[in-house]
Amino acid sequence: MASARSGAPVDRPVLRSSFDGLWSDLDGVGRDPRSGGYDRFSWTGVDLGLREWFAAEASRRGLSVETDRNGNQWAWWGEPADGAVVTGSHLDSVPGGGAFDGPLGVVAALLAVDALQAAGVEPTRPLAVVNFVEEEGARFGLACLGSRLMTGAVDASHALALTDDDGTSLAEAMTRAGHAAEHVGVDEAALARIGVFVELHVEQGRHLALGDESVGVASSILPHGRWHFCFEGEGNHAGTTRLVDRHDPMLPFAEVVGAARRLAAEAQAVTTFGRVRVDPNGTNAIPSRVDAWLDARGAEQGGVTRLVDDLQRFAEEAAAGHGVRLTVTNDSFTPVVDFDASLSDRLRSSLGAASIAAPTLPTAAGHDAGILAARVPTAMLFVRNPTGVSHSPYEQADESDCVDGVEALTVVLRDLLVQPLEVVSAAGAPAGVA
Amino acid sequence: MASARSGAPVDRPVLRSSFDGLWSDLDGVGRDPRSGGYDRFSWTGVDLGLREWFAAEASRRGLSVETDRNGNQWAWWGEPADGAVVTGSHLDSVPGGGAFDGPLGVVAALLAVDALQAAGVEPTRPLAVVNFVEEEGARFGLACLGSRLMTGAVDASHALALTDDDGTSLAEAMTRAGHAAEHVGVDEAALARIGVFVELHVEQGRHLALGDESVGVASSILPHGRWHFCFEGEGNHAGTTRLVDRHDPMLPFAEVVGAARRLAAEAQAVTTFGRVRVDPNGTNAIPSRVDAWLDARGAEQGGVTRLVDDLQRFAEEAAAGHGVRLTVTNDSFTPVVDFDASLSDRLRSSLGAASIAAPTLPTAAGHDAGILAARVPTAMLFVRNPTGVSHSPYEQADESDCVDGVEALTVVLRDLLVQPLEVVSAAGAPAGVA
Repeated sequence: MASARSGAPVDRPVLRSSFDGLWSDLDGVGRDPRSGGYDRFSWTGVDLGLREWFAAEASRRGLSVETDRNGNQWAWWGEPADGAVVTGSHLDSVPGGGAFDGPLGVVAALLAVDALQAAGVEPTRPLAVVNFVEEEGARFGLACLGSRLMTGAVDASHALALTDDDGTSLAEAMTRAGHAAEHVGVDEAALARIGVFVELHVEQGRHLALGDESVGVASSILPHGRWHFCFEGEGNHAGTTRLVDRHDPMLPFAEVVGAARRLAAEAQAVTTFGRVRVDPNGTNAIPSRVDAWLDARGAEQGGVTRLVDDLQRFAEEAAAGHGVRLTVTNDSFTPVVDFDASLSDRLRSSLGAASIAAPTLPTAAGHDAGILAARVPTAMLFVRNPTGVSHSPYEQADESDCVDGVEALTVVLRDLLVQPLEVVSAAGAPAGVA
Repeated sequence: MASARSGAPVDRPVLRSSFDGLWSDLDGVGRDPRSGGYDRFSWTGVDLGLREWFAAEASRRGLSVETDRNGNQWAWWGEPADGAVVTGSHLDSVPGGGAFDGPLGVVAALLAVDALQAAGVEPTRPLAVVNFVEEEGARFGLACLGSRLMTGAVDASHALALTDDDGTSLAEAMTRAGHAAEHVGVDEAALARIGVFVELHVEQGRHLALGDESVGVASSILPHGRWHFCFEGEGNHAGTTRLVDRHDPMLPFAEVVGAARRLAAEAQAVTTFGRVRVDPNGTNAIPSRVDAWLDARGAEQGGVTRLVDDLQRFAEEAAAGHGVRLTVTNDSFTPVVDFDASLSDRLRSSLGAASIAAPTLPTAAGHDAGILAARVPTAMLFVRNPTGVSHSPYEQADESDCVDGVEALTVVLRDLLVQPLEVVSAAGAPAGVA
């Protein structure tokens, strides 16, 4: 039975059942049974299992699978060639993440291939489903690492030296996982093969939840960045060290947390200290060091950088007041990304032709699509998130909305595979810099 | 060659060489090569290695080794019997701890046995060297766990259910290490065997460093306790969640850190938040939960409890202001401990007879001796710490001061082993409660 929506080449009962099947494959992978959250960190055993699953699902569909020099996986329908239609997302997660952020885009891509194949669509150019590595930056601290390396938005030697919490470098982690780290870096050949990139993702926010539509088209990604605040004090005994003799890095850190919130409210931006590492982290020991990571985002780039500058000045005074040394490092900054307008128009138009209304919405969340937008025509589809919650075990999406997302992606891909791509031009936005 | 100090049955060159030997045995055990700090947590492989070392060193001296029901190790010179002279300390460490806190007392005890044996001392009662388990509370959160269990200052079922950061309970950790957890609890038989307990420890503070003496006698331990502050908020995306929609537990935690310092200064006490756990601890995720442990100590018990009460009220308001749930649990509280005055007098008197001047000093650090003081006559010797730093890789003690400490302990033990114990009476201070 064809979809009720005219023009959508999708059999919904089949699709729903296929979706449930793929989704249940992923259900238990890397899940903490206590919190229900996912820990899927790049190049770990859990991630390698997900990569094997991806390769197997691609092979089952007759797609040929390859891994690029930066560790991103590509599954090709048709011979790999320049100017392909590319879709996909990522399978890694934040610590204690939700089920949808990333995997929904990969699963939707595989199911769209099923639907296109079942409908007998004959592509005039190849299609690739991509699984980007370390999108969340949860292990090595730099989000969109796979796409940043590919586009040169981060330097290979800088990236390879990034370490996880155990002190393992990206180079070591890749090598242990059997990936040759010496080829990591800008990959113009891989970029040339992307004619257009369309990423489907669960919405992280409630734009769609407040309306009647289950799928939307992204307009832009707000500027966002990460800064590492390192407070170095002097470890000592919590009982025997007088207050006046202390250089406790926890105190200026705490002041900075409050200041970040005040400055964000003033700047109409958002700031978060979500990751903190305390050394040595003993109840009866004054910390010798507190490392904390600031995430800051806002509608306007100047506002975000001013906020962080102001916060850094505040932090320097706070640290000095406690005899604590402060180092602030910008781990990443991604300027505003406006997705390719003509590509987004084309998405809305083919969706409209299939009677799928898709509102346009911005997002404050970073994505590989935002990194690629600097080099190739890029667009995103969002699937409704009823609570808006993300990066949490409580992230949700209704199965019916997910299936709508697959249907929308299928419609969009069919158009891009069959009709000429020439109307689409690169956005030319500057690349995010590390 | 006998010591320059008359009456001390110690050959200093031999002692110095033996000290260096035992010290170098321990040097690399559980040491982080990057920070230089020690991670020696109870019932881990590192701890089991230390326990084997202790048993082997005791056996080499002809001591018989046994482990009590709570996991404390005892090495007996002479047949185990009630009313023995007991000395020793602990081999576990805080995270990233120093070399001396604990091991110095165990090593000094073994070397004192050497010196007494070499001097042909014939004890009229048995001597035991004890290695108390989990003194720091670094793994299961409750300091002096081995002595608290023995005296009943903590309930066995409560203690066995305590968990480490990986969720492993004390009962599980003991069982995995081959210790029968079902016998854990008050151990009157072990207590009856302690006629007196003398613990030697590196000073944690600078009382001795400011004077000319290398060894001191403890007068008291200030009241101290630990409180667990658990802030439960709502995990969400760091970019897409508006400030007004957030329930970020990091914010009230940060306010409480500042308030704790202000209240401590007002109360002439000390407070520390040295241990913090953030969930899920991702840069781009608002935390769902922040667990933080307060250490609070002061000269006067009422002052400490008032301070913590005030802080808890402040924390409740701060948490409510952010829509965050707060739970505060008292993990332990140890009232002031005045060491047995007659025993301390006797120590000073035998040291004086050996021309060893030992000033009397209080401490704000907790010790197993402080727990035992509620049940048996107990005293402590401190060895000079030139910087006062402790619970840190930078903790120091001069080798010469350590050897002075062994000499002082030897003098004290000889007197207690040879002369009648009857003049010594229990302090009768109330036990620390969990």
